Amino acid sequence: MASITQTFTDNPGKPATVDGVYSEQEVRLANRNSGIILETLRHDITPTGAHYLLTHFDVPQIDARTYRLSFGAGFEAPFDLSLDEIRALPQVTMPVTLECAGNGRARVSPRSHSMPWSVEAVGTSEWTGTPLAPLIERARPKGGTVDIVFTGADEGFDNGVRHFFGRSLSLERIAEMDVLLVHQMNGAPLLPQHGAPLRIIVPGWYGMASVKWLSRIEAVDTPYDGFQQVQTYRYRDHADDPGRPVTSIRVKSLMVPPGIPDWVTRLRYVEPGPVEIVGRAWAGKVPVAKVEFGVGDSWSDAKLAPAPGPYAWSRWSVTWQATPGEHLLRCRATDAEGNTQPLEQRWDASGFGNNAAHSVGVYVP
Amino acid sequence: MASITQTFTDNPGKPATVDGVYSEQEVRLANRNSGIILETLRHDITPTGAHYLLTHFDVPQIDARTYRLSFGAGFEAPFDLSLDEIRALPQVTMPVTLECAGNGRARVSPRSHSMPWSVEAVGTSEWTGTPLAPLIERARPKGGTVDIVFTGADEGFDNGVRHFFGRSLSLERIAEMDVLLVHQMNGAPLLPQHGAPLRIIVPGWYGMASVKWLSRIEAVDTPYDGFQQVQTYRYRDHADDPGRPVTSIRVKSLMVPPGIPDWVTRLRYVEPGPVEIVGRAWAGKVPVAKVEFGVGDSWSDAKLAPAPGPYAWSRWSVTWQATPGEHLLRCRATDAEGNTQPLEQRWDASGFGNNAAHSVGVYVP
Repeated sequence: MASITQTFTDNPGKPATVDGVYSEQEVRLANRNSGIILETLRHDITPTGAHYLLTHFDVPQIDARTYRLSFGAGFEAPFDLSLDEIRALPQVTMPVTLECAGNGRARVSPRSHSMPWSVEAVGTSEWTGTPLAPLIERARPKGGTVDIVFTGADEGFDNGVRHFFGRSLSLERIAEMDVLLVHQMNGAPLLPQHGAPLRIIVPGWYGMASVKWLSRIEAVDTPYDGFQQVQTYRYRDHADDPGRPVTSIRVKSLMVPPGIPDWVTRLRYVEPGPVEIVGRAWAGKVPVAKVEFGVGDSWSDAKLAPAPGPYAWSRWSVTWQATPGEHLLRCRATDAEGNTQPLEQRWDASGFGNNAAHSVGVYVP
Repeated sequence: MASITQTFTDNPGKPATVDGVYSEQEVRLANRNSGIILETLRHDITPTGAHYLLTHFDVPQIDARTYRLSFGAGFEAPFDLSLDEIRALPQVTMPVTLECAGNGRARVSPRSHSMPWSVEAVGTSEWTGTPLAPLIERARPKGGTVDIVFTGADEGFDNGVRHFFGRSLSLERIAEMDVLLVHQMNGAPLLPQHGAPLRIIVPGWYGMASVKWLSRIEAVDTPYDGFQQVQTYRYRDHADDPGRPVTSIRVKSLMVPPGIPDWVTRLRYVEPGPVEIVGRAWAGKVPVAKVEFGVGDSWSDAKLAPAPGPYAWSRWSVTWQATPGEHLLRCRATDAEGNTQPLEQRWDASGFGNNAAHSVGVYVP
């Protein structure tokens, strides 16, 4: 069993992968981490338990009664807070669409061994908590602070490097973003697997920024170089490129696959005649301007409903006249800044930020 | 795109598979269907959303306000019930451990294309509802009734056969089993993906019997031959064997992997010294008599706590003195009828009923 020791003592690298086939390790990650069930895109708020979930290490078990969040190193006025003290602060409830930065990376080529998402690493919940910015002000970052660091209680190894999951945001980002310290999801206390008892939500950014099981907040005067900040979650042109950080969620849309499925292939059987196609579209903190629905290479505009909040997805719908035959149905959204989803993804080296148009194969008898 | 039509008009069969590598279709099923997160085995009741979930077709959207369950064809005194009427009947709350009959089938050889579970298709919830048997009596099955048939609202194709998900139980089984009509899970209304607004729970049997999104109950005077009853969920010695039906859950145990993980391989890093190993063991409707914990080929008895209910798993624990090196940790349970988990699974043709000992690879520095 030489490989076990090597996993923790060397940087063993990841084995090579082959396009279109997946290893037992990748399947285990897919069994453990769960994606949204596409038909729940009918709901404004994803039913609890159907929201996507990616957990790098283990779900920690933290006692909410004794939990304390510390604003410690790097602050002039350090303090810590119990959960009751956080609940007594001003509270905000906000629907936020979160998406994993690696959504769709099952198709990057070549890919490294990691979570093989297809299209389903997304969801929208109502998050309740208190704004972060006033607490950072209260703790007074020392002069020269460049980053605020958020560290979770989840610890493990990646590429032979032992670390707690941690991420940072600059003071400028925190001032301009609606970052929340969150203790409730959909009106109930956070579930263990979603970061209980406390996590942050960074609206508009891919999910890696929304650190779960938050244990401490610190200020640092040199750029934070934690593993999850600089070793991964970067757009790289090639493996040795230091890359550019992954931040805002790109414009994207998904549809509820119409008709009824085949169990294994998930291909769809749709009766001929008018069919209401429903989906969701989102673009981080930018409004969605347009959604188009495509049948083969013919595109038409869908009806777009107002978003339930500035960081939440919008419902779209269109009536399709289904005619006998085989069809490839697609959807693509355009955001208010004019960015449109590509029909074919141009991948970075790691498979981050995929926002290619969603496609569904259907058969009409 | 010839394969789309073929999926729905012929019986295309499933493509061949290769041991140890998996197709994109299988990975998509794994992304859609979710398994328990092993570290939540610390909880008596699996946190909502971390319970395993297998959905053959789509999650139907059913309006609970207008929903009615019918006891119809084959009964002398047919009637139907609204959800409020079901809630007004005598209520029972029961913790029940459910497991997918295909748990572990990622390793059957050769395997067909289906959901590639590793070990995690299990969970325990508290289910609330009303006993089924008195309602069957009230509806009075016609003379000659052999099976009671439960049909869900979920429809799709499998092997080219269009059908609603349906299962049956004999009158004798219903009389001797604690089957419930369930509308709550863990004290809240059923989530859409767990069968809302109403499902059955068949305690002690693998999950396929616990039909979700229940739409009607009927009595039939010839053995029910629905696809999910006779075409699948059978123990077969070879592909053409009619087989024996899959019913009761076999004795099994899992452990919370100790220490901290490697992100991709899930191998474990454990500090030397005493380590508390915790897990769960279950055997359907039979009590668990013993759990053994193995380090390499050395086995010792674990401490076994009382089960929280007759159909729920038991907590087990043991203190392991971790010594430097690589170790294969395993657990195996024995039930009150003397059945012990095998160390290596003897598979049937479809990979059902796997109850081989759980094993976890660890490194101690």
